[in-house]
Amino acid sequence: MSTSASAVRLSGVVPPLVTPLTASYDVDTASLVRLVSHQLAGGVSGVFVLGTSGEGTFLTDEQRRTVLEVVVGEVAGQVPVLAGAIDTSTARAGAHVVAALKAGVDGVVATAPFYAATHPAEISLHFERLASVADGVPLYAYDIPPRIGGTKLPSSLLISLGERGVIAGVKDSSGQETSLRRLVLDRAAAGLDGFAVMTGSELTVDSALGFGVDGVVPGLGNVDPAGYVRIFDAVAAGDFAAARSEQNRLFRLFEVVDVADRGRMGASSAALGAFKAALFLLGVIECPLTAYPSIPLDDDEIARIGSLLARAGLL
Amino acid sequence: MSTSASAVRLSGVVPPLVTPLTASYDVDTASLVRLVSHQLAGGVSGVFVLGTSGEGTFLTDEQRRTVLEVVVGEVAGQVPVLAGAIDTSTARAGAHVVAALKAGVDGVVATAPFYAATHPAEISLHFERLASVADGVPLYAYDIPPRIGGTKLPSSLLISLGERGVIAGVKDSSGQETSLRRLVLDRAAAGLDGFAVMTGSELTVDSALGFGVDGVVPGLGNVDPAGYVRIFDAVAAGDFAAARSEQNRLFRLFEVVDVADRGRMGASSAALGAFKAALFLLGVIECPLTAYPSIPLDDDEIARIGSLLARAGLL
Amino acid sequence: MSTSASAVRLSGVVPPLVTPLTASYDVDTASLVRLVSHQLAGGVSGVFVLGTSGEGTFLTDEQRRTVLEVVVGEVAGQVPVLAGAIDTSTARAGAHVVAALKAGVDGVVATAPFYAATHPAEISLHFERLASVADGVPLYAYDIPPRIGGTKLPSSLLISLGERGVIAGVKDSSGQETSLRRLVLDRAAAGLDGFAVMTGSELTVDSALGFGVDGVVPGLGNVDPAGYVRIFDAVAAGDFAAARSEQNRLFRLFEVVDVADRGRMGASSAALGAFKAALFLLGVIECPLTAYPSIPLDDDEIARIGSLLARAGLL
Amino acid sequence: MSTSASAVRLSGVVPPLVTPLTASYDVDTASLVRLVSHQLAGGVSGVFVLGTSGEGTFLTDEQRRTVLEVVVGEVAGQVPVLAGAIDTSTARAGAHVVAALKAGVDGVVATAPFYAATHPAEISLHFERLASVADGVPLYAYDIPPRIGGTKLPSSLLISLGERGVIAGVKDSSGQETSLRRLVLDRAAAGLDGFAVMTGSELTVDSALGFGVDGVVPGLGNVDPAGYVRIFDAVAAGDFAAARSEQNRLFRLFEVVDVADRGRMGASSAALGAFKAALFLLGVIECPLTAYPSIPLDDDEIARIGSLLARAGLL
Repeated sequence: MSTSASAVRLSGVVPPLVTPLTASYDVDTASLVRLVSHQLAGGVSGVFVLGTSGEGTFLTDEQRRTVLEVVVGEVAGQVPVLAGAIDTSTARAGAHVVAALKAGVDGVVATAPFYAATHPAEISLHFERLASVADGVPLYAYDIPPRIGGTKLPSSLLISLGERGVIAGVKDSSGQETSLRRLVLDRAAAGLDGFAVMTGSELTVDSALGFGVDGVVPGLGNVDPAGYVRIFDAVAAGDFAAARSEQNRLFRLFEVVDVADRGRMGASSAALGAFKAALFLLGVIECPLTAYPSIPLDDDEIARIGSLLARAGLL
Repeated sequence: MSTSASAVRLSGVVPPLVTPLTASYDVDTASLVRLVSHQLAGGVSGVFVLGTSGEGTFLTDEQRRTVLEVVVGEVAGQVPVLAGAIDTSTARAGAHVVAALKAGVDGVVATAPFYAATHPAEISLHFERLASVADGVPLYAYDIPPRIGGTKLPSSLLISLGERGVIAGVKDSSGQETSLRRLVLDRAAAGLDGFAVMTGSELTVDSALGFGVDGVVPGLGNVDPAGYVRIFDAVAAGDFAAARSEQNRLFRLFEVVDVADRGRMGASSAALGAFKAALFLLGVIECPLTAYPSIPLDDDEIARIGSLLARAGLL
Repeated sequence: MSTSASAVRLSGVVPPLVTPLTASYDVDTASLVRLVSHQLAGGVSGVFVLGTSGEGTFLTDEQRRTVLEVVVGEVAGQVPVLAGAIDTSTARAGAHVVAALKAGVDGVVATAPFYAATHPAEISLHFERLASVADGVPLYAYDIPPRIGGTKLPSSLLISLGERGVIAGVKDSSGQETSLRRLVLDRAAAGLDGFAVMTGSELTVDSALGFGVDGVVPGLGNVDPAGYVRIFDAVAAGDFAAARSEQNRLFRLFEVVDVADRGRMGASSAALGAFKAALFLLGVIECPLTAYPSIPLDDDEIARIGSLLARAGLL
Repeated sequence: MSTSASAVRLSGVVPPLVTPLTASYDVDTASLVRLVSHQLAGGVSGVFVLGTSGEGTFLTDEQRRTVLEVVVGEVAGQVPVLAGAIDTSTARAGAHVVAALKAGVDGVVATAPFYAATHPAEISLHFERLASVADGVPLYAYDIPPRIGGTKLPSSLLISLGERGVIAGVKDSSGQETSLRRLVLDRAAAGLDGFAVMTGSELTVDSALGFGVDGVVPGLGNVDPAGYVRIFDAVAAGDFAAARSEQNRLFRLFEVVDVADRGRMGASSAALGAFKAALFLLGVIECPLTAYPSIPLDDDEIARIGSLLARAGLL
């Protein structure tokens, strides 16, 4: 099917960009341009838009188009741009794939169907159809069970999709380190060289790179892309002590997601609100608002995020 | 906000219509017309399109429009037509509300946001915005935790939304009989007369009507609307023994959802495939296919559904 | 195996007695005697000791013996006494069965094994062995998934155990009304007349009796046994309106379990602490303490429980 | 409280010994003696009896005593012997602590209470009481949420218990790598030098040691203790490539737990049956039976385990 899928294996640090919003909930394109610059200056290997961190499922089709156009234009081929095509079903995700391709992205990323409960055989058909729509542009499977009703993409299915050229890799946000490691071993056993395995965890990057993962898609990388690049480079250089030390610093920085009062807002609002507050404090984006109907962080919470940034040496 | 919300309290049997498809996965409008006739002949009090049974989350925007237009046209005001506006976020569900209103529906039905995990305060904002978009057309909350990451709509939130005129009622598909009963008691305590409480369970309708629920939105009602109407009428007449006997017959008929081999397909495919197979065997729809990428039932499975229909006196 | 199992089918109201404790965490036998009197005066059909409400899993073997002896002695054959034999494995539960038989109980009640995850085939062996130990004294299966790692006893397994004379019935505390109803229908289909189906839910007794359940084992029945007996009698007399009204009153009384601050204590402590506080306020037991290490309710919480008792007409 | 708790921090490889049984379900003491020799020859730093792998919750009190006496006697002080004191409540676990102390163990290991749902404040009281019973013998917390109804021991609670000298460390079988890493970082922040953090995962030992865990309690270590010791020694020597390679070999060997037909038996039976089958094939134990009512592996399954042992270089 997709022949370019195995061309270059994705690797390194590919942050899932947040979508900066204005006070009236429009896409803040000027802030988005600055966010892209912040990432490129940090040395990232790619960027991923309209994912979970990008609040893709909150945005209208028109807002999604704006994000795609701004980022593809601003990145201008310096690194690959991946786009989320996350929706409840094949037909609906397929429409997002079409829009992303039109905008000129270098790869698309899709979950299994959700809302309806599906079977691996159905998930396989889903990715096959999406790959056909993607028409040669690499398609990545996004494994994020907690968001899609618990559906976990089995290693055997992912390897099979890779062997058949349907997908070019996987972003694993399952939080299940042993299944991630199994996937790495299964990939080796299958001789599947072009298949990328990226972890979505901010907290175990040194370990994951150590056992053979190719890279990371860290939400916290919005805030400190250079930190994640340092982990990647340290592991590549065999300096595990340096990688561990940097990971530990970022582990503590990740405490920003626990700042907001969970009695007032959901987990998504708290985490994405924290990333946006940090970017706001760093001067990268102009407004820390998360998408409607997410409750925003208050001034005190934002100030506490400032303290954590300072502790991590970023402010 | 919505003033008409308290106009007439929804009640009775309001089946969530399946969406008949052709072999090429287009909406089969002729079959849909026959399905509407089958429902009206069964004596239903309303119909609900583009819900979970309607595979709304599988359909493209265009297919959804087709369903809305055909059903609104065919029902022609004989009973209310409710439409699902089920999507991941307020903005995206709001677009479905707009489309449903344009088609002339009598009510819209929305879940809490999903994919992202939200807080009750955020869910409240979500329904407030949707009610504002609905602009006087009654909005119903759809409580279906297993499909939306486990989010349960608390009784206190639903009552508060009712008291503020945001929602006109709830369809409870939580499967939690005690929380449903609490809602009925809380409604009475709040004196919330115009607020409809409908159960989505096929299996406990006599009990639920017995403790004060107003009606039922049964997926199995696609197949045997008249059976559910008989339960409703029996309870209304105080004949609990007749209601129980009819419910028990339909309880056994519901075994159609267990016919398909769950090693081959997901739970949605098995249940909706069963309803469609039954309608196919009854001559109501022309093709039993469920939406892509759902695996279809095979001939043997369809034959076994025929046996269950015969046992229930329908074939 | 057990021949007496099918002798008399258990039915009616069989409260799961709490275990009154002294301030030094000994079994308070004088309070336990009063609790038995309270139950018999309420018109119960039986009592169940050392179940979940009885904090059986908290007590030492010696404390358990004390409970058994006091209750068997005080009941003195007026109604059946059932005893929990709840432990992690067959061997350990079997030892409790032996102790209960020695004390002269009329039936024993056991869950599936827990801690280790087991298969239905293993659960079947478990009950077979326990029935063999029970040696003719009726054995009841206790279906309470949330307490035992989610293990649900399938209807097919229960019916099979009933047909083979292994168990004399089931106490269903699964909270799953549809599976409970399926069990009732499956029992009828199997012609299993001697097999008792009791619900453990305090909140749906009128409905459950309405669809064919034999009786109820309500924790709240410790507090108001007469109320549950009135529901049972009303349903038996075909007066569903009276049953519903009484159930609604007890539904509201059940709010006692929500009084305690769940930020300070677990769900078990809050619920059992509430029942004990109510019995303390009613003068039945002398000390409202729950078993170590449960956090006790404070004075303010106990006072609020008093208000709920007053609202329910009990104080 | 316990002063010796901080004496020597537990570390290295401490396998949780299986309990060999005879065909009549007695403890096979001769096999148990050989298993201890197998472990000591493998270079382990300690052994842990009556844990999950030891089927402690299946055994009678008398069988537990036999295990304790045989292992303490055979180890004869060469390495520490830890004993599980796993039961539903403080009082019941406390009785196991007493029995273990009597047998002369060097440490005891307890979970939070289970069956009843408890609060961290109650879990804290639980461990305080057990430490008091243990009377100076180190007490370790056992974090194994899936077995005890989902209760996870929070890092803050564990650190607090460590700071107060209640526990000497934790065995983490939560499978949550990020919470395990948080615990390691929290321990460092608290300056809690004598507090041991051991992972219970067979599959991520190199990573866990890499980020600061002290050792491992691997069920698979029953079969290949020397392999786990090689991982430990390689990490200690800074040879991460060797550690990774050995971990990968053992990762694949762990596939023994997937051999048994899960349609016939539970997960516990399949995993422990596999370890016992491997030890049987290696000539260490005489009979591969798991505790009643566990279904045993059949001959074909045992043969397939032999193939995996051969592939791993053990047969």
